Amino acid sequence: VGEFDLIARYFARPVRRAALGVGDDCALLCPRPGTQLAISTDTLVAGRHFFADVAPHALGHKALAVNLSDLAACGAQPLAFTLALTLPAADEAWLAGFASGLLALADAHGCELIGGDTTAGPLSITITVFGEVPQGRALLRSGAQPGDDIYVSGTLGDARLALNALQGQRPLPPEVLAHARQRLETPSPRVALGLALRGLATSAIDLSDGLLGDLGHILERSRVGAEVEADDAIELIASRAYFTGATSQFSSEDWRQQAYPLALAGGDDYELLFTAAPQCRAEVAQAAATAQTPVARVGRITAQPGLRVRDAQGQNLAAHFASFDHFA
Amino acid sequence: VGEFDLIARYFARPVRRAALGVGDDCALLCPRPGTQLAISTDTLVAGRHFFADVAPHALGHKALAVNLSDLAACGAQPLAFTLALTLPAADEAWLAGFASGLLALADAHGCELIGGDTTAGPLSITITVFGEVPQGRALLRSGAQPGDDIYVSGTLGDARLALNALQGQRPLPPEVLAHARQRLETPSPRVALGLALRGLATSAIDLSDGLLGDLGHILERSRVGAEVEADDAIELIASRAYFTGATSQFSSEDWRQQAYPLALAGGDDYELLFTAAPQCRAEVAQAAATAQTPVARVGRITAQPGLRVRDAQGQNLAAHFASFDHFA
Repeated sequence: VGEFDLIARYFARPVRRAALGVGDDCALLCPRPGTQLAISTDTLVAGRHFFADVAPHALGHKALAVNLSDLAACGAQPLAFTLALTLPAADEAWLAGFASGLLALADAHGCELIGGDTTAGPLSITITVFGEVPQGRALLRSGAQPGDDIYVSGTLGDARLALNALQGQRPLPPEVLAHARQRLETPSPRVALGLALRGLATSAIDLSDGLLGDLGHILERSRVGAEVEADDAIELIASRAYFTGATSQFSSEDWRQQAYPLALAGGDDYELLFTAAPQCRAEVAQAAATAQTPVARVGRITAQPGLRVRDAQGQNLAAHFASFDHFA
Repeated sequence: VGEFDLIARYFARPVRRAALGVGDDCALLCPRPGTQLAISTDTLVAGRHFFADVAPHALGHKALAVNLSDLAACGAQPLAFTLALTLPAADEAWLAGFASGLLALADAHGCELIGGDTTAGPLSITITVFGEVPQGRALLRSGAQPGDDIYVSGTLGDARLALNALQGQRPLPPEVLAHARQRLETPSPRVALGLALRGLATSAIDLSDGLLGDLGHILERSRVGAEVEADDAIELIASRAYFTGATSQFSSEDWRQQAYPLALAGGDDYELLFTAAPQCRAEVAQAAATAQTPVARVGRITAQPGLRVRDAQGQNLAAHFASFDHFA
């Protein structure tokens, strides 16, 4: 079958919100008066962002999830997306799985596929996502204030734990790996939390490269510093019970040394990192409850520039961790 | 240097129209009241859409040009674009050339880079472009009417001629190749013509896959047929003087047989194909003059379904040409 048939079969659906969807030179989108369009683009490349043999359903989910996560970090309501899909060959079973994972997440967020491009080449996926945010209400990286609490949603480090295990660097029992792998392969974009934090969070970013690296972007944009409590961060590793439970073979100190890099620099968490004034703790708890998404405090913003990461002994770990950098 | 440095150095520029540009989780764009946003995505893959050793300046130009061409085909005014760039390595000389070609064309059209993603992997470029069109005034593929004239802007077939020469399939004198290669590597998106055709053209598409294949999309969407005059189409090959001039070694019939596939199925022309009512010929000529873009009639729309391509002898060539299909 040809390209146009493939697109029609797996991706073309009746247009709902957009004025015009897949099948013309452009899609047409009409944002409501008083709103701004939030736009983000992310590429996933085989061998770099995913294993080439990952389940296509999971890959479809993740390709959109990482983009929705950017909308969440801006407090934007998802509207629509375009898909640029580069494939070595037109494998129908693969496409069917990819489309079902992609469109299930799209439907869950009311986010409509409005256009795209399918080309032959090394497997990669670029999605550009569109969201709506009331004029002037987007969450930015630039608003953190000295004294603000630093929060993280959900869990940290499990995605990296799974990656390490799948790369053969760390054996894990099957049930531990299975859960961690879900975090790696099918992250949940925190869209509801982002919406609930509008007008409340002073800054926000999504965690794609690791807590410290992404916090660094907030510090740079907001021209502030931060103190992070490493032992609060490692509490957020969902798999910690395996390492710290009664039957664990790991000492508490062994665990800490393994846990710090997972929680602080693991990457691929797709949680929200955000800041809010300390007098707003009850409102943050209410926003988390509304969004049915747990949040936890992991530090505070300081007027003093730089990033300090305190371990249990009060030592600064910051120098041990560098941001994941795609070309580093 | 790291990814973020590269982006900052070559692509980050002061934001003009967008509310927020490169450097946050999302860009923010605020279309004017009464307008729709026209959106299109195109990917260029090394080895498929361009030679890996193409001049980076030309590649930057073309990556945006093919997207602007989609806006032109909708009659949309370019606003902004996102860039997803996948590179084998962070080669600064390459990036500088790519960025200069990309941003020169962007500036020429007042089209602002508002976001993107840079990843390591096999060389490919996905651009998503945003344009503005007054509500309900976009040129679509679906409005062609029986009796309408079929027009093509500019020239046809020279891009394919250059591709054939560069692939060693057809020797060309250096000056002929140089011109044809410009058409292949640095096409001119017909944005001004698209704007001038609003309210005048009944349908439009840009020529990326070849005249007959792209006309086929209009016929399908408009539920009509067409007759194309092959000898009118080959008149639009800019390099024809080389093949048909007094010193040419080609017979007139030799030339026709070589010219038909170039003009009718060459691909990569990035001209506009559009339809307009025959009583609007003077207005079409005026639109072409306003846009400083030549246009020529190459056929007409018919109520009878199907595509008929008449050669000089009145024979139907349609069966000889199939649309370029990326997975065919």
